Amino acid sequence: MKYPNGKQFTSALEKKKSTINHGSRGMSLENEINQSNQYYLSRGIAVVHKKPTPIQIVNVDYPKRSAAIIKEAYFKKASTTDYNGIYLGRYIDFDAKETKQLNSFPLNNFHQHQIKHMQQCYDLGGICFTIIKFTKTDEVYVLNFPDLFKYWKRKEENGKKSISKSEIEHNGYKIKYNLNPLIPYLEAVKTIIDHTNI
Amino acid sequence: MKYPNGKQFTSALEKKKSTINHGSRGMSLENEINQSNQYYLSRGIAVVHKKPTPIQIVNVDYPKRSAAIIKEAYFKKASTTDYNGIYLGRYIDFDAKETKQLNSFPLNNFHQHQIKHMQQCYDLGGICFTIIKFTKTDEVYVLNFPDLFKYWKRKEENGKKSISKSEIEHNGYKIKYNLNPLIPYLEAVKTIIDHTNI
Repeated sequence: MKYPNGKQFTSALEKKKSTINHGSRGMSLENEINQSNQYYLSRGIAVVHKKPTPIQIVNVDYPKRSAAIIKEAYFKKASTTDYNGIYLGRYIDFDAKETKQLNSFPLNNFHQHQIKHMQQCYDLGGICFTIIKFTKTDEVYVLNFPDLFKYWKRKEENGKKSISKSEIEHNGYKIKYNLNPLIPYLEAVKTIIDHTNI
Repeated sequence: MKYPNGKQFTSALEKKKSTINHGSRGMSLENEINQSNQYYLSRGIAVVHKKPTPIQIVNVDYPKRSAAIIKEAYFKKASTTDYNGIYLGRYIDFDAKETKQLNSFPLNNFHQHQIKHMQQCYDLGGICFTIIKFTKTDEVYVLNFPDLFKYWKRKEENGKKSISKSEIEHNGYKIKYNLNPLIPYLEAVKTIIDHTNI
């Protein structure tokens, strides 16, 4: 069994086990985004936080003179996306997904309720998108929700279960790794906002 | 030891143990807000979710053919507020606090980092506030962040550790219990937004 986001429970140290430090190679997309959000927060550019992993708590011990210990709990499916916050006065909402595929992004990385959540936020004027990382090549893209939804509907209509890499290249925004922030994804979001406001 | 929000870990059933069903009496503010948010969501009025309780996971079992079991974990202090979302195209961010006091609201219900988080969101154009419930009298108020911050600074400056009930009555917005939504707090938020946009 894995995390709802499909990842095994591993420490941040274990994750960065690549011996060659080539850009961010070996770092999880989640860590890269958290680092970037930390930078954006420190500069007063945006407030974006990852939501805690949802847990169903079953049994808790309250020992005297020490912290409560959760003795039994289970991972729950998230009912929303992992990240939200505020940027340029706008509500932003997104999920981050990694794939080991080279030429396509499998849509089963998303659950129906995540798509529905993004649709609900989008309908109210929120800026919704997904960040996709191709881990084999360290390529990161921002894909605006209306584009993602187009492919999601295609899956429902004709069964095509993934978005091809070239479709992502064509519709998405490629994010180049940087020093600070590591993933300057808000530049793409600014472009999306600018287009939305026209 | 209690939850970071100061509540013991009790089931929803236990919480509603009042025998007299006088309005919402006996229901926790959190449940009341969740119910109200469910209504707002179903009508396409706003998307607001409570964030999961942050947990530090220490030990997880992965039994074959069944779900992962968290065997050891601890409650962490939240680094943000409990609720955020989108309403009238605006990013909204707030916390919900109960007090058993009759005539004042103790400011130690807030942590420094929650105030800082609201300040950061507010500075970027977010609508930040707190919902306060006086549980003895079932009175609920929305207090806008700038007002909350005024009293927070007063605490730091002259040590007054609470906001008096009359100050809340004067500066806040009283929310009358309703059927649907149970707590129509977004009416007060609309007033705040209208004043912000002037």
